Amino acid sequence: MQSRELKLARHPRGKVRPDDLSLDVVTVPEDLGPGDILVRNSWLSIDPSVRMRLGPTGPAGYLPPFRIGDTLAGLAVGEVIRSRDDGFEPGDTVLHINGFREFAVIREDGDTLAGAGGVTKLDTSEHPPQAYLGALGSSGLTAYVGLQCIGELTGGDIVWVSSAAGAVGSLAAQIARLRGHYVVGSTGSAEKVRFLSEELRLDAAFDYHTPDLADALAGAAPDGIDLYFDNVGGMHLQAALSHLRRGGRVAMAGAVASYDGETANAGPNNLFQIVAKNLTVKGFRAGAYDHLLGDMRAEVGSYLRDGRLVATETVFDGLESAPDAIVAMLGGRTVGKTLCRLG
Amino acid sequence: MQSRELKLARHPRGKVRPDDLSLDVVTVPEDLGPGDILVRNSWLSIDPSVRMRLGPTGPAGYLPPFRIGDTLAGLAVGEVIRSRDDGFEPGDTVLHINGFREFAVIREDGDTLAGAGGVTKLDTSEHPPQAYLGALGSSGLTAYVGLQCIGELTGGDIVWVSSAAGAVGSLAAQIARLRGHYVVGSTGSAEKVRFLSEELRLDAAFDYHTPDLADALAGAAPDGIDLYFDNVGGMHLQAALSHLRRGGRVAMAGAVASYDGETANAGPNNLFQIVAKNLTVKGFRAGAYDHLLGDMRAEVGSYLRDGRLVATETVFDGLESAPDAIVAMLGGRTVGKTLCRLG
Repeated sequence: MQSRELKLARHPRGKVRPDDLSLDVVTVPEDLGPGDILVRNSWLSIDPSVRMRLGPTGPAGYLPPFRIGDTLAGLAVGEVIRSRDDGFEPGDTVLHINGFREFAVIREDGDTLAGAGGVTKLDTSEHPPQAYLGALGSSGLTAYVGLQCIGELTGGDIVWVSSAAGAVGSLAAQIARLRGHYVVGSTGSAEKVRFLSEELRLDAAFDYHTPDLADALAGAAPDGIDLYFDNVGGMHLQAALSHLRRGGRVAMAGAVASYDGETANAGPNNLFQIVAKNLTVKGFRAGAYDHLLGDMRAEVGSYLRDGRLVATETVFDGLESAPDAIVAMLGGRTVGKTLCRLG
Repeated sequence: MQSRELKLARHPRGKVRPDDLSLDVVTVPEDLGPGDILVRNSWLSIDPSVRMRLGPTGPAGYLPPFRIGDTLAGLAVGEVIRSRDDGFEPGDTVLHINGFREFAVIREDGDTLAGAGGVTKLDTSEHPPQAYLGALGSSGLTAYVGLQCIGELTGGDIVWVSSAAGAVGSLAAQIARLRGHYVVGSTGSAEKVRFLSEELRLDAAFDYHTPDLADALAGAAPDGIDLYFDNVGGMHLQAALSHLRRGGRVAMAGAVASYDGETANAGPNNLFQIVAKNLTVKGFRAGAYDHLLGDMRAEVGSYLRDGRLVATETVFDGLESAPDAIVAMLGGRTVGKTLCRLG
């Protein structure tokens, strides 16, 4: 059986270009061993973090970079089409990390091209399968953990979420709003500002393309902020540090400002604010908080059922569109969860 | 009665110079109101933080800058020579914030030149009065709180303390060592490296004047660090972020690298490490933790009584030496607690 896979053709120089990746046809191995399953992927998660693995070196402490010729890995949802594992049968919908390919053989011993990773069976009776990549999956968990555990969201907190039209940001901003907080969102275009105000119904929204980010933030949150949910880093973090109130917190979920380029950006020049105002800056990756998936799905699932939370998707069709999806997502030209739909 | 006071003559341009300050003779007001006391200062605390108040603008959230002609303020120990407060009588040794002057009238209503601030009577039967400016005072509290509350020092933690020959750093490094931790100290000269190794008996010490701070740190702590006690900021913080282990913590007590100059320094370019390794960076000022003074004095006091903790002082004599004391302290040319002794 043949399958198409997306491989790293060369390390990007500066911003990623579609031809840094190549679409190759491979033969799917037929020899399922005991415990192995064969999955036909239906949805791929297109996440900013993939940029950090396109190498040649990635940030220390993070997942290792891909080598030239490696098939990319990433979260995906698919259907089991053959199984030698008693826990799975054909027709099951599963979540796994062997994305960026049409078919994935997932080995009992974890020895797949993508590296070890669990496979989870999904209940799709209430929510569509791709929700488990977005609002009910890694994006939702990142938003939930960032507010709940890292940012220690407390009654009355004023919250700023950057990349608020993005997969994680749109969820963090809405969860905070639905819990009764005053929420400011920032994003990168006038159209997305309207999306934040009209679709997500945030209390204030602004475009970060402004002469003075700190001024724009001050205009949107005149009394200051207590929690900054940081998806960007760089100048956004600098504006937050200057505008946080005493005892404020930063939940660092990502630093997309530094992902898509060759040189490391200088950090904020006002870190002394952390001392002056007793601030806490805390980073996290949702992967360490899988034990909270149930709590997150209970809360976000109920918002989704009630129609109170908007789970916007930008969908690209076919594996051949995945390079464009990555480039568009990193360039801020997608809204909500960026997905690639297969087959 | 006449008193000499140290006033701000002009805002420093770049590094502080002694003639940015002026020594003026003033007449001490004789009209003590109910609740007022008159104190003859005997010891002044010379702290890096004074630099931030020499203006013209200070960091937001911090104590306001002095205006031209203001008498500087700072922690001081003195003797009550006249009192209209039932809680104090002549001969009492007191701690207060009306430093940088020979005599201080401390008003019941807090309306002193230095601004409001409490006055505390000191028990000097066991420790010399100036200990309450250093190991048993603000420096000790900063060291204690930074390790205990902010850094959440835990058994087995490997600790790096920057400015480890300074007032706060020398105490933080020794407290951590006396609690059984592997402690690395950094400082700014070969002589002070010897002080860290031989006097403070730290496990490893290095001079930060090195081509690669991260390499020097890696040599001193080959297995990484769990807690960085930051007195410096800038490139020191950058080295720490790259060398902290997963779940590591930074206790930011100060950022002396950015105090004594005109331009804000760019921050670390590797803040993404905070996300990648689930790090926590937390700032604090000891002033918010006065309720822990008793706990700190119990622990540090016992180390002092046993002779297990070295409380080194660099002493300047006479108020006329205070400008030199400030310049020397900011320039890293003092060891341990920098003090100015009066009368």
